[in-house]
Amino acid sequence: MPTTHLAGPILVIGTGLLGTSVGLGLSQRGLSVRLVDPSPSAQVVAQDIGAGTIHVPGTPLAPELVVVGAPPDVTAQVVVQALLDYPMSTVVDIASVKGSILNGVRNDPRITTEHLSRYVGTHPMSGREKSGPAAARGELFTSMPWVICAHEDSRGDAVKTAEALAIDLGATVSRMSAGDHDQAVALISHFPQVASSLIASRLLNAPGHSLALAGNGLRDTTRIAASDPKLWIQILSHNADALLPILRGMREDLDRLVHTLSAPSAPGALLDLAQLMGEGNAGQGRIPGKHGAPPQAFALVTIVVKDKPGQVARLLADIGEAGINVEDLRMEHSAGHQVGLVDISVIPGRREELITVLSALGWKVAQ
Amino acid sequence: MPTTHLAGPILVIGTGLLGTSVGLGLSQRGLSVRLVDPSPSAQVVAQDIGAGTIHVPGTPLAPELVVVGAPPDVTAQVVVQALLDYPMSTVVDIASVKGSILNGVRNDPRITTEHLSRYVGTHPMSGREKSGPAAARGELFTSMPWVICAHEDSRGDAVKTAEALAIDLGATVSRMSAGDHDQAVALISHFPQVASSLIASRLLNAPGHSLALAGNGLRDTTRIAASDPKLWIQILSHNADALLPILRGMREDLDRLVHTLSAPSAPGALLDLAQLMGEGNAGQGRIPGKHGAPPQAFALVTIVVKDKPGQVARLLADIGEAGINVEDLRMEHSAGHQVGLVDISVIPGRREELITVLSALGWKVAQ
Repeated sequence: MPTTHLAGPILVIGTGLLGTSVGLGLSQRGLSVRLVDPSPSAQVVAQDIGAGTIHVPGTPLAPELVVVGAPPDVTAQVVVQALLDYPMSTVVDIASVKGSILNGVRNDPRITTEHLSRYVGTHPMSGREKSGPAAARGELFTSMPWVICAHEDSRGDAVKTAEALAIDLGATVSRMSAGDHDQAVALISHFPQVASSLIASRLLNAPGHSLALAGNGLRDTTRIAASDPKLWIQILSHNADALLPILRGMREDLDRLVHTLSAPSAPGALLDLAQLMGEGNAGQGRIPGKHGAPPQAFALVTIVVKDKPGQVARLLADIGEAGINVEDLRMEHSAGHQVGLVDISVIPGRREELITVLSALGWKVAQ
Repeated sequence: MPTTHLAGPILVIGTGLLGTSVGLGLSQRGLSVRLVDPSPSAQVVAQDIGAGTIHVPGTPLAPELVVVGAPPDVTAQVVVQALLDYPMSTVVDIASVKGSILNGVRNDPRITTEHLSRYVGTHPMSGREKSGPAAARGELFTSMPWVICAHEDSRGDAVKTAEALAIDLGATVSRMSAGDHDQAVALISHFPQVASSLIASRLLNAPGHSLALAGNGLRDTTRIAASDPKLWIQILSHNADALLPILRGMREDLDRLVHTLSAPSAPGALLDLAQLMGEGNAGQGRIPGKHGAPPQAFALVTIVVKDKPGQVARLLADIGEAGINVEDLRMEHSAGHQVGLVDISVIPGRREELITVLSALGWKVAQ
């Protein structure tokens, strides 16, 4: 049985994707988890897949921690009710917006400073393009950032309990204020989501022969456009204040670009385009790499493989036997052929060795 | 020695990434390739890595095919010169825009209908976020679409020679007019490029603690923002007419979104957001899958792996031994931990079997 920082029992209110995943992960670590959801079928599914035991309202329960996994719209009121119902418990929520929920809790007339002291807003950054308890998994939070937003009234032990939840589930704790959190996710999550939807919307009426030429550029920029609208309209409307300045900034750039492309041979036009592209280069270069490593820290080796069972496995087995770790792997696709390219990322110091080893074993290394 | 449709010799004018890759691929297939580039060092690098033999201007040469791999800005004039210099040769270019180049060739006062009949515009869709002859590889075009743009004056045998080039290099031939091509790439290549740069630009002045939370959503939408501005300012300015209506469409959606988020509790606001997201869902769903398969034809299985040498290899070996083909593979990263999630795509009919096999072998399958 793994050692945990939490002692339990833990009550999970709301057994959607995240709540059920919390229940699964904590149960797998041996903690006692109770589940409750306004949807009878959702809480039964969550119990059936092993996320915990359904809590019957009214039966006595003194949880160490209450985890509120409700939609952003109703999170504040569920948190308030939990603070009232469980006077000895720390209460956290796991919604994607934090400022509006903290305000909602703080401004409820039933809430005292004592209540507030037991509430900590948190945000596990583990969303997927899926939802519901059936998609849950105990490892959802592994290696992912989990933001803990202590506020001026939160008690030290409540914050510690919130952090224990994140640590027990294998996440990486990140501490910031609710305001800083909302600014951060507006930029690195809500804005890319909206932008991806804006890009994908343009494909609605595109001719099929155009889409047949689509490569990884289009695929990558539109992947998250497949996300669930029901959840996102709540997130976007709850974080509109942080998102708007970013969208206005993008609109300024877009206006400038439309103006420039309307007269591409005017003086300064190419310089304008170069500046836009250059700013994109610089912005992209600021995104940190895997394991928090500096950006672009890995070296790329591309290998040509036949697209049949076992080829990529054999390739990776050969790399593994050489004792070289694959930091990232990307398969390049396209319509038509049954041969593909695999991009392997390794630490730069091992790149030459990898090329030598693979070439000696007969792999077609294409740079 | 593999059989080829081309007989050679082939003259490659311009030994950048694409031209050198063409030379490498044709040389590897046993064809005689001559190289020439205005940069002495570029042509030496191309020769040294095996892309062909430097052609000394003035020495006699009667190529079957001339491949012009010049920047878009000068492509038309290089094509014109090649048509004049090599009166028996088919001349193709491989630039990313086609209409403006065809017009440039057609409108040159030295060009007759006979000249035009030997010119075919083509576009191998194999760009990478790299450039220069040192990044070239003979397999760059494998499985990628290669658009062949016959025009009203092009001769049948010239078109056939252009298609032979694409086929010999392992690409998939796609036929369309220069106008249709430019519309298509504006949407599926130039627009995502610009949009990705616009997204990444917003990161320029972001605080580091925000960027530390970045996940795959931000990474995916901004990956191509790392592309080379020098090449792209030419592409964008040469295809401005096709790109502008798409950007104006995006600006309309963006305006509507900014307006909606400025009053997120106004009547109809959530409906507006839902419509934007829904259109994004539908547009994304139209992108064809690997091998031209219908969109989203594959089923996903997620496995938890230790991030150490050989783990992914062992996983794929187990999948290969079960006779199941991996259609796509994606590693999920984040800052911090040394455990990761691997998303495996398989044909839907094999998904349950794969889960059973992997679970029996002790892998942690996370749905």
